[in-house]
Parts: sequence; C-alpha cells; structure tokens
Amino acid sequence: MRTIDWVDGHVLILDQTLLPHQVKMVSIATPAELADAIIRLAVRGAMALGVAGAFGIALAAFRAHEQGRSVDRAVDEAAALIKRSRPTAVNLPWGVDRALEVRAGGPLAILAAALAVRDQDITANRAIGQAGARMLQGVRRVLTHCNAGALAAVETGTALAIVERLHQAADLEVVYVCETRPLLQGSRLTAWELGRAGIPHRIIVDGAAAGLILSGAVDAVVVGADRIAANGDVVNKVGTVGHALAARRAGIPFVVGAPEATIDPTRASGRATPIEERDQAEVLDVAGHRAAAPGSTAFNPAFDITPADLVTAIVTERRVLTPASSASSDGAHVAL
Amino acid sequence: MRTIDWVDGHVLILDQTLLPHQVKMVSIATPAELADAIIRLAVRGAMALGVAGAFGIALAAFRAHEQGRSVDRAVDEAAALIKRSRPTAVNLPWGVDRALEVRAGGPLAILAAALAVRDQDITANRAIGQAGARMLQGVRRVLTHCNAGALAAVETGTALAIVERLHQAADLEVVYVCETRPLLQGSRLTAWELGRAGIPHRIIVDGAAAGLILSGAVDAVVVGADRIAANGDVVNKVGTVGHALAARRAGIPFVVGAPEATIDPTRASGRATPIEERDQAEVLDVAGHRAAAPGSTAFNPAFDITPADLVTAIVTERRVLTPASSASSDGAHVAL
Repeated sequence: MRTIDWVDGHVLILDQTLLPHQVKMVSIATPAELADAIIRLAVRGAMALGVAGAFGIALAAFRAHEQGRSVDRAVDEAAALIKRSRPTAVNLPWGVDRALEVRAGGPLAILAAALAVRDQDITANRAIGQAGARMLQGVRRVLTHCNAGALAAVETGTALAIVERLHQAADLEVVYVCETRPLLQGSRLTAWELGRAGIPHRIIVDGAAAGLILSGAVDAVVVGADRIAANGDVVNKVGTVGHALAARRAGIPFVVGAPEATIDPTRASGRATPIEERDQAEVLDVAGHRAAAPGSTAFNPAFDITPADLVTAIVTERRVLTPASSASSDGAHVAL
Repeated sequence: MRTIDWVDGHVLILDQTLLPHQVKMVSIATPAELADAIIRLAVRGAMALGVAGAFGIALAAFRAHEQGRSVDRAVDEAAALIKRSRPTAVNLPWGVDRALEVRAGGPLAILAAALAVRDQDITANRAIGQAGARMLQGVRRVLTHCNAGALAAVETGTALAIVERLHQAADLEVVYVCETRPLLQGSRLTAWELGRAGIPHRIIVDGAAAGLILSGAVDAVVVGADRIAANGDVVNKVGTVGHALAARRAGIPFVVGAPEATIDPTRASGRATPIEERDQAEVLDVAGHRAAAPGSTAFNPAFDITPADLVTAIVTERRVLTPASSASSDGAHVAL
C-alpha cells in the first residue's frame, strides 16, 4: 500500500486523519483539493509532502489541458497555493519546483518528473534505513517522535525505516512512541505502523520521554526532519528538541533520518526558518470537545528547532552527517 | 473557596475531575470514599493530599466512634488504605502520620491535628509565594507545568502562589501553561485558576515547552513538587525534567515551590523513590474514546525525577535551598 500515488489522472492518498480506525483512500482531482488535504493533514510527513507537491503541479497541468485553459497559468496558481499550505516543510516547495522545472514539456513531462520524485523517495528511504541501522547496530530500545514512517513517505519512511531495519537485524526490545500532541501522530500513526510490522512498542505521553531517557531505558532517539538548515539545525515536529536535550544528558545518540531534499541550504540556521503556528483548537479541544478552561487561549507552534550541536547524526540517502561532533558550541559553523 | 475542608463531620472536596466545566463540592463520609476520591484524582496535588491524609484519619476515628467500633483499629485500617492510594506523593503519608501521632487523644484530638495540618498549609503557601516572588523579581514570562495552584492545596498553591505574587508586584506578560498530558491538569486546572485571577496565560502542549524556552520566550520555569529527596532531586508530574533541561540550556532559573513536608529525608535520591504507574487508558484513550492504534499498549508513569543539579532553587515556607549551586556533577551530595 502506498500513502500517496498517481492513479488514472488523479492523486490517490490514504486519508491519515481517519487512522488508525479507518483505512480509506481518497481520490484528489484538483490542486485546491490537494491543498485542502495538506492543510487538514490528510496527507502529511516531509517526504509525502514532497511527492504531493510534485503531483499537485501535475494535477494542475492535466486539468487545465483537459479544459482548454492555460497550462502555464494553472501551474503557477497551483504552485503558489500548494506552497502556502504548509509553510515550514521544505520538501513541499521542493517537490513543486521539481515539477515546475519541466513545465515547458507540458503535462506529460510534468507527470514524469512527479513520478520520478515518487520513485526517488522510495529508493532514498530504503537507503536511509540501511545506513541508519548500520550506524545504530546493537541498539535494542529506541524512542521516536511523531511519524516519520511509511505514512510520512510513499512506501517506507525515514526514522521508522531505520527502526524496521534494526528490528530485522536483531529483534528490538521496545520502541517508545511519543504520542505527539496535539494531533497524536505517534499514537495514531506510528503505533499503527509498528503494530502492522510486528515491532514491540509502547506509547508514552510526550512529557514522559525525558524522564524515561534519563532513567537509562532508551539506547537511541531516532526522528525524522521537516527541514534541516545549512548549519545542521533540525526543524521537526514540536517536542523533538526536548528529546535531544535528554539524549545529550543521558549520553545516547540522537539520530535524524531525512532525505537530502530536506536540507535547505538557503537557511543559515534553524532560527531563520518560519515556524508554522496552527489552530489553537488543536490544543484547547480534545476529540472535538473543549477540554481547556473556558476563555483560555493557546499557542500552537507545529515545529521546534533542535540545535546542530545536539544532533549526533543526520542520515540521508547519500551520507551520514555528524553536526554535534563538528559543531562549535553555538552550533553555527557546520557546513552541510 | 477551599479545595478541601472539614464540614459537619465530613470532608468536603471540590471534585477536580469535573473542572473546568463544573464546580461541584462532594461530601465524603468514610476513609474508603476518600481513598477512592484520591485514586480518581478528584482531590490531588501535594499539599491537598497532605490535608486529605490527615482528614481521612479523622473520618475513620469519627465513624468508628459513632458506630461503637474500635477507633484504634479503624485508624490503622484507614492509614494503610489511604497511604496506598497514591504511592509517590510524600505529603499523603505525612498528613496521615500527623493525625496518627495524636490517636491516643481520641477523635477530637485527631481532628484538631488534621485542622492544624490544614491551617499550616494555608500559612506555608503564602510564605512560599512571597519568598519565591522576591527571588524572581522582574520576571515577566513564566512557564509552569501541571497544577501547583490553589487546587493542589487548601486555599493557595505553591508554584501558582509565586506566580500570583509576581503578578501582584508587576503585571506578568504571560504564563505559559503546559497542558500536562495525560490528565490535562494544566489546561483544565491551572488555566482555570489563572483565568479567575486575571493573569494572562497561554496553554501549550507539553512538547512545545523546550522549543519555547530555547527560543528565549521564557524568563523562568516555576513548578511544584510531589516529593523532594534528601539530595535535592525533585519528583514532580511527568514532563517536569524536560523543562528543567531546557531551562538549564537557556540559562534561566528552574524554581520549585514546595512546603517542607514535601522533603523526604528518608530517600537519599530521586532514584530511590517509587514512581506511580497509572492506567494505560489515560494515554490510549482521549475523552473516553480510543485514540491510539488498536492493539498498542502504553507506559504511563505519573512522575519524573529532576536531578538536583538542574534545580536553581527550592522555595519552602522556611528557606530557599539552591541544589544546583551546591550540587556535585551527579547531584548526589546536597544535604537539605
């Protein structure tokens, strides 16, 4: 099963808002429908968003061509719309741009480029899984955050590709899955993936991670990334940097699995990255009902920044970068 | 309004499981009813539990006396039952023991001792508020975790007593309230208290705290404690130690407000403290519905341990302890 694919002139996605209780594929016909699916997180995760971005341009080109409208104008409008839908994920505009590069070739050239993005994602993630597992040989107890699994990609993930490889090599004892408030991608998506793969795991609240790591119960933290700055700062789901701080104190590796496309050479550091602020209701409401005190407001950043000097390794499909070992104390001088 | 009190031979508690949507007082007649209220967190928080422990013994004595049963046997049974109900909170057995000490004097002596525990709590917390606010003079942006407010005490809290004093002295800009999964004491209780006190606040998911602190948006972290070991290690609601790690990295104070009764000289360090593991359903279910992947299990520790060397100050009603400044690198040599 693929999280996202191109089928009969449409984009087919697994609607992740319905998981883990319902496995439903949704057919998307237009860039507007795709942007909506991205905003409501029906499709999410760094790599999947890259593929979605490219497919979105293909959708625009095909629909315009079918309706006799200007393909050029349609792909421009779609590019702007889709890039806006998640401002922090670097893979999304990257995927869009990969498709735009070949716009002169028309709809079929654009689709071919988008399918190449899809295939490249599958290949890259397999390589990340292998390289990460090699690096973490002997690790039996892993902690992960959010979902950097197959659901965040096309067919296989980054952090979870490493976890799955580790489990294939030597049975893992346990994967601690941070539930990942506010949207529970950990308990809903990662736990679902690990369950299907038969990997032993336990869900914890995000706040339990630091104490668990400090108690000696975790051998390595493995996460994905939404964007990596030129200095090695890692932008990932809110909550990540806390795990990195705990890993540093406990002396265990903090490893990031991410494709090269996640690295953004235009951002000198994580601080230069826009952090998406999402709807307060995600924090204040629980299962559609107001849980918080009436009248109170929330601050809901979707990501945080892990400084490069806390990152043991960034594993991409091509190389293993080690920001922490080469970082200055402020992490500002790691050229990736 | 008092969170817990003795009225007409019964213990009257504010049922905190119904907050913030319903303010309901519950009358408790027996030690068994009290233990049940403690287990389901209708009454919670270090200081309130100390008072509850003492009142529970008074309930046992009065009921036995009224029914012509052995007061001695009744208070022994009640002491065992109540101490078992929350194994980590040190104040609970402390309150029980305060009442047991005067058992020879009969029900009225026991009640007098319990009322003294109640009054001492009110006085102590006012003193903690004053001393903490003096120490943190000039702080405008505070982050707190869980609920160490009036709801965790009789009439005024510890961490929130400090926050309220700070706000009285010079308007606070913002209090960041960690929602505190799994039971949301932050967004339900602390936000409710701050709203009633007119103190500006924003609720965040627990995972957002570290990134927020590292971004420079917080001047001080102020929390309560459920138990403090002889070396200065602080046992508090799960999630606390992550905030302490972030505060250390950001170079801001991490301050604990707690009455002397929270200090447990019999525990050499936090590692020697039993950590209560609560029902998995608190993590797996959200608002009564299963949110996590079917078949997945959870690990649900209620507390974590903040090593003494991360604690800038422990403010009690009598003194300000500074474990971090006197701690060895492993935090093992602070005599409180």
